[in-house]
Parts: sequence; structure tokens; C-alpha cells
Amino acid sequence: MSENKYVYDFTEGKREQRELLGGKGANLAEMTNIGIPVPFGFTITTETCDLFYKNGKSYPAGYDDQLKEKIKIVEEKMGTKLGDPSNPLLLSVRSGAAVSMPGMMDTVLNLGLNEVVVEGMIQKTGNERFVRDSYRRFIQMFGNVVMNVEHHDFEKILDNKKETKGVELDTDLDANDLKDLAKEYKEMVKKATGKDFPDEPMAQLQMSIDAVFGSWNNPRAILYRKLNDIKGLLGTAVNVQAMVFGNMGDTSGTGVCFTRDPATGENVFYGEYLMNAQGEDVVAGIRTPEKLETLNDVNPEAYKQLCEIREKLEKHYKDMQDMEFTIQEGKLYMLQTRAGKRTAAAAVRCAVEMVEEGLIDKKTAILRVDPASLDQLLHKQIDQLAKSKHKAVSKGLPASPGAAVGEVVFDAEKAHEWAEEGKKVILVRTETSPEDLIGMNAAQGILTSRGGMTSHAAVVARGMGKCCVAGCSDVVVHEKDGYFEVNGEQVKEGEYITLDGTEGEVFIGQIPTVDPELSGNFGTLMEWADEVRKLKVRTNADTPHDSEVAIKFGAEGIGLCRTEHMFFEGDRIKAMREMILAKDLDGRKKALDKLLPFQKADFKGLFEVMKGKPVTIRLLDPPLHEFLPREEADIAELSKEMGVSVDELKQKIEALHEQNPMLGHRGCRLGITYPEITEMQTRAIIEAGLETGDDTLVPEIMIPLVGNVEEFKNQRAIVVKTADDIIKSAGSKMEYKVGTMIEVPRGALTSNQVAEEADFFSFGTNDLTQMTLGFSRDDVGSFVPEYIEKGILEKDPFQVLDQTGVGQLVQMAAEKGRGVKSDLKLGICGEHGGEPSSVEFCHRTGLNYVSCSPYRVPIARLAAAHAALKE
Amino acid sequence: MSENKYVYDFTEGKREQRELLGGKGANLAEMTNIGIPVPFGFTITTETCDLFYKNGKSYPAGYDDQLKEKIKIVEEKMGTKLGDPSNPLLLSVRSGAAVSMPGMMDTVLNLGLNEVVVEGMIQKTGNERFVRDSYRRFIQMFGNVVMNVEHHDFEKILDNKKETKGVELDTDLDANDLKDLAKEYKEMVKKATGKDFPDEPMAQLQMSIDAVFGSWNNPRAILYRKLNDIKGLLGTAVNVQAMVFGNMGDTSGTGVCFTRDPATGENVFYGEYLMNAQGEDVVAGIRTPEKLETLNDVNPEAYKQLCEIREKLEKHYKDMQDMEFTIQEGKLYMLQTRAGKRTAAAAVRCAVEMVEEGLIDKKTAILRVDPASLDQLLHKQIDQLAKSKHKAVSKGLPASPGAAVGEVVFDAEKAHEWAEEGKKVILVRTETSPEDLIGMNAAQGILTSRGGMTSHAAVVARGMGKCCVAGCSDVVVHEKDGYFEVNGEQVKEGEYITLDGTEGEVFIGQIPTVDPELSGNFGTLMEWADEVRKLKVRTNADTPHDSEVAIKFGAEGIGLCRTEHMFFEGDRIKAMREMILAKDLDGRKKALDKLLPFQKADFKGLFEVMKGKPVTIRLLDPPLHEFLPREEADIAELSKEMGVSVDELKQKIEALHEQNPMLGHRGCRLGITYPEITEMQTRAIIEAGLETGDDTLVPEIMIPLVGNVEEFKNQRAIVVKTADDIIKSAGSKMEYKVGTMIEVPRGALTSNQVAEEADFFSFGTNDLTQMTLGFSRDDVGSFVPEYIEKGILEKDPFQVLDQTGVGQLVQMAAEKGRGVKSDLKLGICGEHGGEPSSVEFCHRTGLNYVSCSPYRVPIARLAAAHAALKE
Repeated sequence: MSENKYVYDFTEGKREQRELLGGKGANLAEMTNIGIPVPFGFTITTETCDLFYKNGKSYPAGYDDQLKEKIKIVEEKMGTKLGDPSNPLLLSVRSGAAVSMPGMMDTVLNLGLNEVVVEGMIQKTGNERFVRDSYRRFIQMFGNVVMNVEHHDFEKILDNKKETKGVELDTDLDANDLKDLAKEYKEMVKKATGKDFPDEPMAQLQMSIDAVFGSWNNPRAILYRKLNDIKGLLGTAVNVQAMVFGNMGDTSGTGVCFTRDPATGENVFYGEYLMNAQGEDVVAGIRTPEKLETLNDVNPEAYKQLCEIREKLEKHYKDMQDMEFTIQEGKLYMLQTRAGKRTAAAAVRCAVEMVEEGLIDKKTAILRVDPASLDQLLHKQIDQLAKSKHKAVSKGLPASPGAAVGEVVFDAEKAHEWAEEGKKVILVRTETSPEDLIGMNAAQGILTSRGGMTSHAAVVARGMGKCCVAGCSDVVVHEKDGYFEVNGEQVKEGEYITLDGTEGEVFIGQIPTVDPELSGNFGTLMEWADEVRKLKVRTNADTPHDSEVAIKFGAEGIGLCRTEHMFFEGDRIKAMREMILAKDLDGRKKALDKLLPFQKADFKGLFEVMKGKPVTIRLLDPPLHEFLPREEADIAELSKEMGVSVDELKQKIEALHEQNPMLGHRGCRLGITYPEITEMQTRAIIEAGLETGDDTLVPEIMIPLVGNVEEFKNQRAIVVKTADDIIKSAGSKMEYKVGTMIEVPRGALTSNQVAEEADFFSFGTNDLTQMTLGFSRDDVGSFVPEYIEKGILEKDPFQVLDQTGVGQLVQMAAEKGRGVKSDLKLGICGEHGGEPSSVEFCHRTGLNYVSCSPYRVPIARLAAAHAALKE
Repeated sequence: MSENKYVYDFTEGKREQRELLGGKGANLAEMTNIGIPVPFGFTITTETCDLFYKNGKSYPAGYDDQLKEKIKIVEEKMGTKLGDPSNPLLLSVRSGAAVSMPGMMDTVLNLGLNEVVVEGMIQKTGNERFVRDSYRRFIQMFGNVVMNVEHHDFEKILDNKKETKGVELDTDLDANDLKDLAKEYKEMVKKATGKDFPDEPMAQLQMSIDAVFGSWNNPRAILYRKLNDIKGLLGTAVNVQAMVFGNMGDTSGTGVCFTRDPATGENVFYGEYLMNAQGEDVVAGIRTPEKLETLNDVNPEAYKQLCEIREKLEKHYKDMQDMEFTIQEGKLYMLQTRAGKRTAAAAVRCAVEMVEEGLIDKKTAILRVDPASLDQLLHKQIDQLAKSKHKAVSKGLPASPGAAVGEVVFDAEKAHEWAEEGKKVILVRTETSPEDLIGMNAAQGILTSRGGMTSHAAVVARGMGKCCVAGCSDVVVHEKDGYFEVNGEQVKEGEYITLDGTEGEVFIGQIPTVDPELSGNFGTLMEWADEVRKLKVRTNADTPHDSEVAIKFGAEGIGLCRTEHMFFEGDRIKAMREMILAKDLDGRKKALDKLLPFQKADFKGLFEVMKGKPVTIRLLDPPLHEFLPREEADIAELSKEMGVSVDELKQKIEALHEQNPMLGHRGCRLGITYPEITEMQTRAIIEAGLETGDDTLVPEIMIPLVGNVEEFKNQRAIVVKTADDIIKSAGSKMEYKVGTMIEVPRGALTSNQVAEEADFFSFGTNDLTQMTLGFSRDDVGSFVPEYIEKGILEKDPFQVLDQTGVGQLVQMAAEKGRGVKSDLKLGICGEHGGEPSSVEFCHRTGLNYVSCSPYRVPIARLAAAHAALKE
């Protein structure tokens, strides 16, 4: 037993020992060993924590002796002694696992104080108020985090005291008040816990260590590990360190600093400090901290030393560092260093510049930037400073990132009109439907009171790169009366609101926004990512405009063009409705003939923008009733337009109504019952292709919702016959491909059969998720948030691919499909195509490409590079 | 090559050679060889057909010689000669595969006739009209089936002739007319085909053989084989046989007979015949055929011979035979024998009595009865004779078998009231919802205009063993105006209609019905089935009454009790609505406390009926909005009842509305967001169990819609805590099981995880089919019928388990589950549990039991026996 080492002092550890010493402990040791001034201390290992649990919450043999030995070393180094009133050693105790983890025990400071030591320290420092304040803070912290007394109970006593004294701030209390407080605190602790507050420093220390280990398995920490998929850790380490004080007078102070600007990434020394203050004062915001540069005036020696440490640590760690320091009576101590949190812009700039400086290589640079964070760079954002002065009136789902300011409008048509007049508008609706596309397109942003992260509004808005707050259930839209209510406020049509789609917040009034800057560094990083990734990245785009945006963002083709999105404007919707309401095949064909030129022009536009890059066009997918009006007034109008009675119209709409439209008459089921639709769409694609005159063009025609190879065969036959006739008549040799969406579980299960017939598969993971999990994405709002809260689901499966369930089907389908046709082209075109962990899954599964909305293309490119590098 | 034998004469074949000679050919040979008088002939083998296709539609070497040789043998046996005007041999040519298969070529009779032979035959028979009629019939048949001239084109000429002559019946045409007709026919054939009608008998014969082989691969035949899953056949055989004539005068005749009564199975000789007639005349119904017994008076010799043949054939084939015979000028010939088609009642009686007679063994008897056919025996049926005098006004889906006669009523409440007054009613609705249960229960039968085979109406009606015609889209219900329209007819409330649920037919007025008779033979057969089957058979039942019915039908437990069905009556629905509308947990708990005693009483009733047999109770499954009213008037009433404003009520209903309720907030998702529901239901089950005082009772609690093991763990924890507390307080040692439905694809895919926690799985193949195929069972009416027609689907997947897709998931889940827990109890409780091919699949997959509606229990028992015997 005795050969096991449970306690490492700071000279014994190193940064590579994160697993054993925790992140904090490893860095404190590393700093100590490269000559940075660190208050001395030691770390109790994560292994000890593991054994603590394995032994039924008791410590291994030998631990006690090692602890005592290390305390002796600290005492020697610091020249002080634990519990010695004349020259006391005070300690801080902090938890620290290998991975940063909120939810575990907070810090205990000033450990080692008791009535006797307090008296001695007053003698020694001559600063009674400081010592008494330290003591009452210690009782409060220890009482709360170690002895589990409610924080609130301490605050009550403190508030009482301030009221009695008629003062407002803690700092207005004098030494006597603080002495009283300490007494009252201890009495309250006794009453609440039935135990005396411990006076003996070693007992205080051991209780604190127990508490840290105990907190490893508290529910919050367990949930946090689960939600963040943190596995395989032994436990937490405990860091015990000599106290230094920034609040010992005007030559003392404390601060935080970054080796580069964490907001912009600029290579400047950045930080804040306060003299005569403790760490929490800098954060609390009662006093305004000073800019770091001014420290040069206050204590040039310390500032110079800090600048040297900045350089030393960044070179040493090869990453931007976030450091904490304390100056005690003029002398600088470093309390912590760690990789600094940074904005996406800063991450990109640091990564690229560090490569230029020769500090890191390109691969490291790529991995330094979180793909998901790029979203921040690609959209207009609310100015953060301005935002901090406003309070959100409500919060919904952050359905599509970015910011939008505009006048409220409730009707899609009106949104369009106002926008034409040059107004900036925000479309506010209970939920949106395809009829609203014209208004969504015209609006700066969209706010809905119903629907989840993959509701119509959310999906379309993301596709458009347009800000959207969805499912904001506080909002009640009174469309007819021209206002909406939100938490007691009324907002009328024409009044301004501001949306923060990144956070899901809604503000009344206008808040300034900041435009995105796709700086040179961004471009450089993306180039590096492209060099290493193996997955191709395509885009989901329905219009030439979207395609242009996507190409700018680096898309290598269109993975999904949803033809139905082309059917909603002006004359098109009329022809579409005519088709749906037709009484027979002839009527349908006549209407389809009207749609043909529109579709052809659309496809030609796409082909021209994409210049020979692959374009996958999905045939009509949604159920027909989506194209018919729902509101009485609209039905009446349509009745007039079409010369069909309102009653007949209503009957037709009623007849098309479905209990579960998601599982109804849609996708290839439409093409099978109405082969003339498939014919028309094929004609439009092929004729458009021929008209481009581009020899290299190979259109990819995609049959949606195939669950059965017979469905595919039926549709393929129609496509091939139509296409071959046209190509032959034109005397052309144009090639084309016919493939399918794999989005019905049965399609995945029988993909070997489907692969015999199909040229490619594209996994439609939105619908595949809906059917595999039995979740209607429009309806999950009622339980998925609670599922996530209760830990039943880790993530929203419509945002992050469910690799265990849906992923199993994707993998199975890929294997079965490739088993039949080894060069089968595989892609994914669900919302997941732009989500980093899902992209990584696609890489591992051997797909050829992912396809996502234009604004997510850079995310997918970077995520694909990460996946390749992590392999 | 020359060693291959392509043509077998009737002395060379035997019954075991079905594969080679086809069913018809094998039986003709068999009869010939056991001394039955059969017009001589030969069979061209199915192998020849196979080679015909393999050789690019040409015949193998040697075939020609063999054909000629066999014709010579026939000529010798018959003493006639093909094409010899003085003594001509005439032939019939018929197709005949190993399996009876409509869609292939029809018969050609009288082959060998031409102008010259006709003249000779007139001379020989002295019956010009007979000969000329035979000739024009031959031209018509040959022209149509061999030369592909439209039947219609012949009919037009015939009609013309009759009009010119001013007669109505074919028989009114004289020999001269028929002579003209033959001429006109031949001219028309020439015009239509560009070819002369062949005069040379050998050419006629070879063309006919070509046509039979060609018809093997016509689209109808291919579709038929596909739909009936007929695989592995080589092709069709061709039977060529000397003609005999039943229409040569009063001593000639033709008939069909069965060795037992095909309607009842009684061991009596049963048949019909007509003198001076050809086969088609017996079927055509122009003349009424005579009862077979009377033949004894007409030709006692032939009758006696026929009786001997009856006995000989039945003993020989050991099955009831369906025979065709012809008497030519006093002499009896047998043209065909095959296993006779019979009603379910006859099948059961024949099977059991043949065992008693020592003709067959029990296993054979079991396999003789088609499990699906038992449905006929278990329900009231329309009297067939009476029915033949009525014409159905419309046809819907045969959603639940049986017959019902009653007064039309449109409202569930009124149906209940009228039934209380002693009226027989039929509930007619656009579609039904759980609110209609009270009316469905009171009605004789249910008619809906919308919904498929597994719509609410269909499922509930089958469960109740009640006749239902669903999705009858001709029916338009005008509930408020008190009538429905159907194909131009108006039927008012209170008027009588008759439903045939077995056929899906609707009749206006009353038609007499026949009650089911579960005769002794039925019981005997079921006992034999129980001796051999390995699968257990449980029932889906929600009430003590249903359970009693099921026990009578042989159920061995309850596989699915749907607790929500208990929530719809009187005070229960009130309490349920109170629960749903409650604003907080307290309100919900109060309402649940009111539901508790009802549920407890329900469960106790079930337990008492089942007397220790296993009872699986599924916790609340449907979305809550199903319990709220939809109609304005009902909402107003509820508003008054509950003291909640109409507006608030509507808002709540609106808030609960879902786009795709099937994939929404239901199943265990409810129990997770409202754990108090799970608690109440568990309490009701356990307390009811304890109150029965039955030590052997082990309630099985089933968590619905689990797709994720975490859902199951969450619910199991609530169940276990609640149950254990109650059991402990009661000082009992009662055991219980907690299992889950596997009905979400993800549940099947991750069943290894679920199996770690669950005591049993029950496959909910209804929902599993919905989600795996992406078919909403309420909405598939718009495309599934067309899918089946086009051969995209073989069967309605809600009736017959889709073994390729859904079955793959079931198998995977069973394997993964058993991999973790080898004794995991597996069952199925979807609609498929009572469908024979699905039951067979369950047997092969190693499930422990199937569970189906009470009226399907006998079907499942017999199907399980078949599965075990076929193994």
C-alpha cells in the first residue's frame, strides 16, 4: 500500500498529468516547475477520489501521512504554520477534475482561521477589519459548501446586521460588526446542523477534502457529466494551496488577464485588475476594475513580471491563456492558468496567427476552432454592449441564428408589400406554413409562438440564413386585431421589435446590430480545413440566390433542391391549386403544363449558378393539402379565382385532410398515384439541363420517401422513359442519375434491394429521425425539453443526429447498399448535415458528402476537417 | 437431346408429377391409370415451357416428333383422325400449372375443325346445327385467345346477326345463320390480324400451344404469381385431350359434382348436371341445372358408375373432390378432378369426419382448414340465398367480419339510447373516435366513410367481434340533417340498412342473417390444433365481457389491456377531462383520485375472469386531446360542467392539438411528463390484484411507446416504487412484472439496452408498422389500395405483417433482447396477432405468444398449429 502516492506537491506534478491531478492541479504544478511564482501547495489525486468511493467513502492507507507530510512542506516553503496564531498558514481548497465541470464543490478560502488564529493575525497584520472579514467569509463559505447550510441563511443574518446598522454595503460594516457576524454565523450553523463549527485547522481541511470528493457524485455533477458525455474519469482532484491576499491594502490587488484579446483574438495583452480586492470583487461588479495597462503605473515591477509571464506561458502552452493573479503587498503570485475562452472570431484569428507565428501547425489550428461557433461569424449579431442595456421581453427557441430589427407584421403578403416599400419588417405568426414563404423571404426575421427547432419556420429561416425565434410560447398573436401580446405587453403592427436568433430572445424596440465580417483569417482557416477533410460539403438550396450564397460559403454542389418550394409564388400556386383541384387526368395535365415553364426556368437558374457542380433535385414531397388555403377568406378568394364553389373547395380540402400528414399521401406516393407529376418534373429538369448547353452537367433526380424498392422502380421507370425520350429527341447524350432519399426506416432496412435500382442514396435524417423515434418534429415541444432536462435525451435529436438509433439505421443502410453496389454514392441532406458531431458521424460511416443549409456550409467544412484529423 | 421427354400421354403420368405436368395433367393421368374413363390425351410438360423461354421462344429438339407420336396414339385410342373429314378427331387445349392460376390462357375447344371437316361431321352426325355451332364457337375462342382478337369484335357480329334476324337468344339462330357467322368471323379475324384463320389442324394445335406458353408470362399472370407469392415454378403445362360432347342430343349431358357437400361438408354426393349441354351452359345460368340424384332416373348406368367413381376418387385422393363429367351419347367421361373448394364449415366437418373415417390423420386434418377462413364460423353472416337477391348500394373495406341489420343512427349517444329501448341500430359516422365507444358498443354494426382497415372503427369493432364496414367513401354523412347519401340514394335516420362486414358491402333495407354455430367438429379440430402448437395465444381485451368471450374462444391470457378504453364512460370521462384541464399537479392528482376506484374495479374484474392467467395491462397510451370534445356543442356542455369558460377550454384544446398526434405526446411520454398518471394506474393494478386474494396472480405492467431505455427506466422506477410501497403495506408478497411495448423503431434497434431493464417485450406491430413504413393507418386509404393494385405492395401491411421490413425489426429486437436476457418473454399484440401468415412468422421468430382480438383467437390457435406442423 505505502508505495502508492496520493498527494503531489506542486514540484512533483506536470501538465501532462491532467488525468491524475486534474486540470487545475496539473497547471499549478507546471507553472511552479517553470519558475512562475505560485503560492505553494499540493494536489490530492483523482485516484484517491476513486479509491475513496471504492472503499465506501474512506481513504486509503498511507493517505493521512502523505497529507501531513505535504502540509509540512507547504509550511516550510511559506514560513508559516497551520493553526499557529503568531504566524498562521491559511489555505484555499478547490476541486479540479481533468475536465472543467460546474456543479462540483465551490472554493473554500481562508481555511485555518479560528478565534485564536484571528486574534494572532490581528496582532500580526494590524488590520482587524481585514482579518475579521476574512473569518466571517470563511465561516460562510465553509458553512455553506462543506456543512451544507443554505447560503440564504447567512445572507439573512448579514442583511439583518446591515439593517440594524442602517448601512447598505458590506464594506460599511466595521470590525466589531464583523466580529458579531462571525459569532451569529457559528450559532446559526450549530442550530442548522447540530454540529459545532470546527475550530481545528486539520479538521477543517479534512472536512473540506471530504466535501470535494463528495461533490463528485452529487446529482448536478452526474447530470453535467451525462449531458456533456464526459466518461472514464476517475474522480476529482483536490487542490490545497497557501492563501495570498489581494485585499491587504493599497499595495495588494488581484486581477484576471488573457495573453490575447479573447473578443477579437488580437495579439495584445488584455485584462483587468483591482487593487485592495479579492478575486470575487473583480467579478461582482460593485467596483469597476481597471484596465491592465494601468498596472504599469501602480506597480511597474509587477506589471513587467506579468508581461514576462504572459509571454512565457503562451509560448509554453502554445495557446492563448486565461490567468488569475494576486499581488500581496507588492509581490506578484499566479493563481491559475488555463486555455482562455474566446469568441469564434478570436478563435479563428488566434489559430491563424499562431500558425503564422510558428507557434502551432495547421492541424492544431483547425482543431482549435469549434465548428459550431462559426455560426456567430456568419450572421448579423446584436451589438453586445447595446444589448446589455435592454431586457428581453421573452425567450423562445434559438431557431436560426443572427439578429433582426424591424416593424412587426402578421401577414406574409403584407410583409412582402412593406418590404417592397423599403421597410424592414419582422414576420410574427403563431406558426408558418409554405404559404408564408413570400413573407418570410421579405422579412428581416421571423418570430413564431409555436413549433420547435425543426418547425417549418425554423427550417426555412435557417435555409435562408435568416434570424428566427420559434416556439416563443409567451407570444399570443391576435392577427385580426393587429397586435400580439407578450408577458403583459401589447405590440402593434408597425411597432419595432428586435430578435436575437442566436439566443432566442425577443426585445421590444430597436437595438443596433453588427454585420458579420468574413475576414481573411476565416478564409485562410477554411482553406486549411478543405485540405484535410475527406467529406464533400454540398448545400440544400432551392433558388439561384441561395445557391450563390452557398457557393460563396464553399458549397461543392446542391445536395437537396426541394422543388415544392418553387410552387408557392404568384401564378405558380394558382396552377398548383388547379392541378390539385382537377377532376381528372386531363385537368391535372393542363395545370401541370402551366407549371412546367416555371420549374424549367428554376432548374436552369440553379444549373447555371452551379456551373457543372452536382445538383440533386428532389421530386415533389409534401402532401397536397399544404398547397391549399386554410383560412375562410383565402378559400373564398380561391373559389372566385378558380370558379369552383366554396363548398366544393371545402369538401376537397376536407377530403385531403390527414390525421398524420407526416405519414400520409406524400413523397413518391404522390408520384405513384399521379405519375403525370413525376413526368412534368422530369421534363422540366431534363429540358432545363439541355438548355444550359453544358456537356458536363449530370442532373441527379431524387425520389423521396421510398420505403419499398417497388416504389422506386415505379418512379424510376417514369423518369427514365420521360428523360430518355427528351434526350433522344434532342439528339443529345446527356447523362443523368436517379437516386432516392433514405428517410423511411423500411427504406433503410431494405436498402440492399433499393441499391440494386438506385444510383445514389441521400439520407433524409429529418424524416428518418421522426419515424425512427416516433417524434413529430412539429409536436415534440410538449415533451422533448423535459426529456432533456430529465436526462432521458442528451440532445434534441432533430439538431444532433441520434447515432445510437437513427445512426444505426444509417450505418446499416450504408453497409447493405454498398454491399450490393460498392460505389454507391451516399450523402445526407437532413438538418444534421451542418451539425458538427453528426458530420463526424457521417465521416466515420463513410458517406461521400453532407448537405446543409448555405449558412452552415462553413461549419460542415470545418467539422469534416475535424473528423478527418481525429481519425 | 433425344433422351428428354417433353410430352406425356395420360398413361405415362401420375398425381405426384404436379410440378412437371401441372395439377390438371397429373390428375388426368392419375384418373386414367386407376381406370377412370377419361377422354384420352397428353400433356406437354412445364419443363418444355421453361425451355421455350430459355431458347428465345422456340421448342427443344425432339419435341415435334414426340407431339406427333402422341397425337397418333390419341387417334388410335379414339379411333378417329385429326383432320379426317369422315371421322375427325377434335381436341381441347388447356393450360395447367402446378398451382391453379387465373390469368393464363383460356380453353380452346373443338380444335381440328375447318370447312372440310365441318362438312364431313355434318354428314356423320346428321346434326348440322350442332356442327356449325361448334365451328363458330371454335373460331371465336381460337380467334380470341390464340390470335388476340377482341372478344367484343365477335360479339358485335353476333349481335348484328341476331338483330337482323329479329331474335334474342343465340339458340334461336339456325344452321344457316351459324354458317354465315363463321364466315363473317373469319373475315373479321383476317382484317384485325392481317392473317388468315388457320384451317390446318396441326397448325391450329401448335398455335394454341404457343399461346398457352405465351400466356405464362402475360402481365396478369405475373401479377397473380406475385400477389400470391407463387415462386419457383418452371412454367405451365399444356393439356391436349380428345373432345367429347355433352350437347349431341338427349342422351348426352354434362355436370359438376363434389364427393361431399361443399357448403356443409356433409358426407353426401352433391352435384348438378344438364342434359344436351356443354360445360359452359351449366355455369351460364340460362337453363337451371338438375340435381345430381335425378341422373339416376335419366341414365341409371351412368349414375351408378359416377357413384363408384366418387368413392374411388375420394379414397384415392383422401380429400373431397370436385369433378367434371360429360356424358356423350350415354357414355360417361370424367374431364377433371381436383380438391374441392369448400366453406369453412365444410372444411372443418370434412377434416374431422375424415379422421373419424380413418381416411386421414389429425395433422392432415389440421392443415386442411385455412385458419383465416374460421372468421366465417365465428360471426353472424348474411344468408347467402337472400343476399343474392339484393344489390349492394356501395362497397367499403371489410373492416370487421360478420353481418348486421339495424336502423341507421348517426350519434353515439342516440345509438346507446335506441339500443336501450330494444332497437337494433347501426352507427353510421364519417369516422369514429374514442367518444363513440358507447354507441359502437350498443350498435349491431358500424359503417364509416373514412379510415382504413386499422382505423379506430375497424380496430374497435374487431375487438368487439362486431361487424364493421369502414372507409366506404361513397357514403356522405349529413349528421345534422339526419341522413346519409350513398350513390344517389338518401338514407334517413331510423331507416334500415344491412352490412356485410366480411365483404365490406352495404345494403339498403333488411336482409336475413344466419347465426354462427360452433359445432362439435369445430371444437374437436381446435383441440387437435392445441395439441401441436407451440405458440401461446392470448387476447386483446379491455373488459371482463371481452375477456369472457376470449376465454370461450380459447385465450390463454390477456396480452393487451388498453386502459384508456376504460376512460370514456359517464363519470370517468368527466374525471379524465378534469385531469387534463387541471392547472397544476394538485388539480391533476385530485382528478386522478376520482379515476382510481374505476380503474381498480376494472382491473379486478379482469383478474377475476382470467383466474390467474397472465394479464398484461398497458398504461395510458393515446394523446390527451383524444379525451376532449371537438364539436362546439360538446365543448359548451363541458364548459358548463367544469365551470371553465368556453374560451379557456378552446384554448386548452387548441394547445393540445398536434400536427401528427401519432408521433406526438402520448405513450410513456405522458407518464414521464405526468408521473402521477403512472402512479395512479400502478396503484389501481396492484390494489386490484391484492383484493382478488389470488396468490398466483402476477400482473404484467406494460410501458407503451418506449424508444429509449431511459424512458423505460424512468417509468419502471415509478411503477416499482408505487407497487412495492403498496405491497409492503399490505404485508403481501405479490409479484409483478414490468415490461414494454416494442413499437417504435428505435425501441427495436436498441432492444438490447431495453432488455437489460424490462421483464418482457410485447411487439406493438400496429404502431411499428406505421413508423417503419411511414404509413399513418388513418390516412393510407388514399394510396394503399392503388399500391396493391399496382403490385407495389402485396398485402395491406396493417393486416398482414410486412415480414421484410417490420419483421426484420421484430427479429432483430428479439435476437438482441434475448442476447441480453435469454428467457425474455416475447409476444405480439398488434392486429397481426390474429393473421395466419403473421402468426407463422411469430412462431418462426421464436416468440412466446401472440395476442389478438377475442374473435380471432381460434384463428391464431389454428395458425399456430399450422406453423408448428409446417416446421
